[in-house]
Amino acid sequence: MTTQPLEKNLENCEIAEQVITPWDVKGEDEKGIDYDKLIKKFGSQKISPELLDRFTKITGHEPHHFLRRGIVFSHRDFDHILTLKEQGKPFYLYTGRGPSSGSLHMGHCVPFMFTKWLQDVFDVPLVIQMTDDEKFLWKDLSLEEANRLAYLNIKDIIAFGFNPEKTFIFCDLDYIPSCKEFYWNIARIQKCVNFNQAQKIFGFDETSYIGKVSFPAIQAAPSFSTSFPHLFGNRKVPCLIPCAIDQDPYFRMTRDVAPRLSLPKPALLHSTFLPALQGAQTKMSSSEVNSAVEVCDTANQIKKKINKYAFSGGKVSVEEHREFGGDTSVDVSFKYLTFFEEDDAKLAQIKGDYESGAMLTGELKKLLIEKLQGIVKTFQESRAAVTDATVEQFMSRSPKS
Amino acid sequence: MTTQPLEKNLENCEIAEQVITPWDVKGEDEKGIDYDKLIKKFGSQKISPELLDRFTKITGHEPHHFLRRGIVFSHRDFDHILTLKEQGKPFYLYTGRGPSSGSLHMGHCVPFMFTKWLQDVFDVPLVIQMTDDEKFLWKDLSLEEANRLAYLNIKDIIAFGFNPEKTFIFCDLDYIPSCKEFYWNIARIQKCVNFNQAQKIFGFDETSYIGKVSFPAIQAAPSFSTSFPHLFGNRKVPCLIPCAIDQDPYFRMTRDVAPRLSLPKPALLHSTFLPALQGAQTKMSSSEVNSAVEVCDTANQIKKKINKYAFSGGKVSVEEHREFGGDTSVDVSFKYLTFFEEDDAKLAQIKGDYESGAMLTGELKKLLIEKLQGIVKTFQESRAAVTDATVEQFMSRSPKS
Repeated sequence: MTTQPLEKNLENCEIAEQVITPWDVKGEDEKGIDYDKLIKKFGSQKISPELLDRFTKITGHEPHHFLRRGIVFSHRDFDHILTLKEQGKPFYLYTGRGPSSGSLHMGHCVPFMFTKWLQDVFDVPLVIQMTDDEKFLWKDLSLEEANRLAYLNIKDIIAFGFNPEKTFIFCDLDYIPSCKEFYWNIARIQKCVNFNQAQKIFGFDETSYIGKVSFPAIQAAPSFSTSFPHLFGNRKVPCLIPCAIDQDPYFRMTRDVAPRLSLPKPALLHSTFLPALQGAQTKMSSSEVNSAVEVCDTANQIKKKINKYAFSGGKVSVEEHREFGGDTSVDVSFKYLTFFEEDDAKLAQIKGDYESGAMLTGELKKLLIEKLQGIVKTFQESRAAVTDATVEQFMSRSPKS
Repeated sequence: MTTQPLEKNLENCEIAEQVITPWDVKGEDEKGIDYDKLIKKFGSQKISPELLDRFTKITGHEPHHFLRRGIVFSHRDFDHILTLKEQGKPFYLYTGRGPSSGSLHMGHCVPFMFTKWLQDVFDVPLVIQMTDDEKFLWKDLSLEEANRLAYLNIKDIIAFGFNPEKTFIFCDLDYIPSCKEFYWNIARIQKCVNFNQAQKIFGFDETSYIGKVSFPAIQAAPSFSTSFPHLFGNRKVPCLIPCAIDQDPYFRMTRDVAPRLSLPKPALLHSTFLPALQGAQTKMSSSEVNSAVEVCDTANQIKKKINKYAFSGGKVSVEEHREFGGDTSVDVSFKYLTFFEEDDAKLAQIKGDYESGAMLTGELKKLLIEKLQGIVKTFQESRAAVTDATVEQFMSRSPKS
């Protein structure tokens, strides 16, 4: 999971290998992450047209544009989930967030937008884990601060419109010391994985805190329905996890452990990363303030950030651009539109116009700015309506009305 | 912490080094553990006559015979605890038990007898941790079984006569998923210790489960009063830990961590091990059924075990014994009497008679058998009076009446 030492690679002139771990995402070049390579390395399945056809046949829904466009590109056992749906058997959704900052950026929105759509389509329970403990361990944050950030993030997450009757949101730092069934599952998982395995999967070394070494069990445990007795009693209900591909190591481990605990393996749907404004080599990150459009940004901030930082695939002069056209394979603004412009025909039109040179970079950016301003405005209105009482409703373990 | 490979030692004809860890206790030879070497290796202080004089001066109590006879032989900062007592400042006691079997043996009784005496002398709160999670991790036990054994052990422990108004007993597997302050302290400790440190202190390796690697924080956390908000609120009250010397690695780690969390270092009183019936090389163990006198044994079982298994320092024939006398330095029955015969004069008389040859092994064993039968009978009567309601009282977190 770590980059080869530079010396080793110089001889055959290779660029350093791409790095995808829960804590580090780096692509090989400006084209970004090679997701086909990742599928091979991680041993997951590519989402095929046949799988999407089956999805439509069973659910009666068109696939989300993330699925149509390969933004959600890989899976494990999603076909099995479709079979459950077909047979009318229960399953649930699990996703999460590590609260490293007080608000979300557009990259964080991708899995939540997708999860909201999945919940609408399947009408199943959803659990959302806030790994405040992870951020405490990996960042220079106190427990109190990590927990506070989690609560701020929860308000953002609720604003995506999840079904309050079927969604349970929890912070690890509150839920572990209040739910025996969850903690016992964590303990069971911690007896199935040794240091050597954790080292290989997550890249831990001798300097890793013992809290980090045992943390993966905490992210694994919500994959098992018995961690949520208020939702499932002690029934073993299968789980589908929509997440960004960098979280897959946790669930490879979980799938390895599940049969030894006589529990069902979680299924997965993997999304690609929204690139940083500066280019597709790395993902959007809150730590790099100029790499990210935040959901709390003003319309003007969005405009400024896109115009100033969004890496362009356009040519150096208008004349050259008109003649040769722009390169949509590296253009960040176009990439973002593939995430946020739902209309396939409109997106195809933009692609054609930009590649032919009919559309200039400024015009492309203007379209993206308007799109993002619209999404963020809607989000902020929804966010403003989230009160402490709403949070309480989503975090409550008493039976939903 | 591990034995040197045999080859290395053959050259200079050394016997393998003694091994003292929380999971393994082996002495060098039949004389047993060299406790002076341990003090040097662990960096603790020997309990001096001056310290015991100061104890008597401050408390008005004679030192317990365990202290007088070097059974409780070593300490860390016990002088500081005496100063607190002198100044009328608060502190509390913390001890524990790993429930590896359904009942205690006489070796387990040593720290509890001593702790009961300390509570009587100092009249302070006491917390008793049942590390059912540890036994789950280290033994072939399910969580349910480890937890069940813990509850059985708690009834035994209560039978030692602890003050129900000032004693809180808890099982990790229940208390962690129900007390945020305890869990948060565990998490804080897990961010202070890395794998390399845990490896050095506890001998973990790459094949250790991640649960084992992070477990030491769970045994460390009760050293901090903030883990018990129902007893101490958020006050930082110093702690004194009476325990067998093999538990010291946990608290060396705890003392290293404490200042980084702005919490007081726990003080310690270390006891030696009650030897196995077979001899002083190793401690009494529940895993070796014939090495242990159990608190649930009948009078007849005790008689049989001592007569059959207790290693004798007597001579091969009565004639030789009468002439040369017995060797009390290796005789297990005599060793046990140093633990359980409180009367110094009586013990000295027995020592003299046995070493002179006036007392035969059978006579010595008879004295021990009667002593143990008496202790066990008293214990069993006290144990029979412990009900589920008593257990509830000791485990309750509501204010004691």
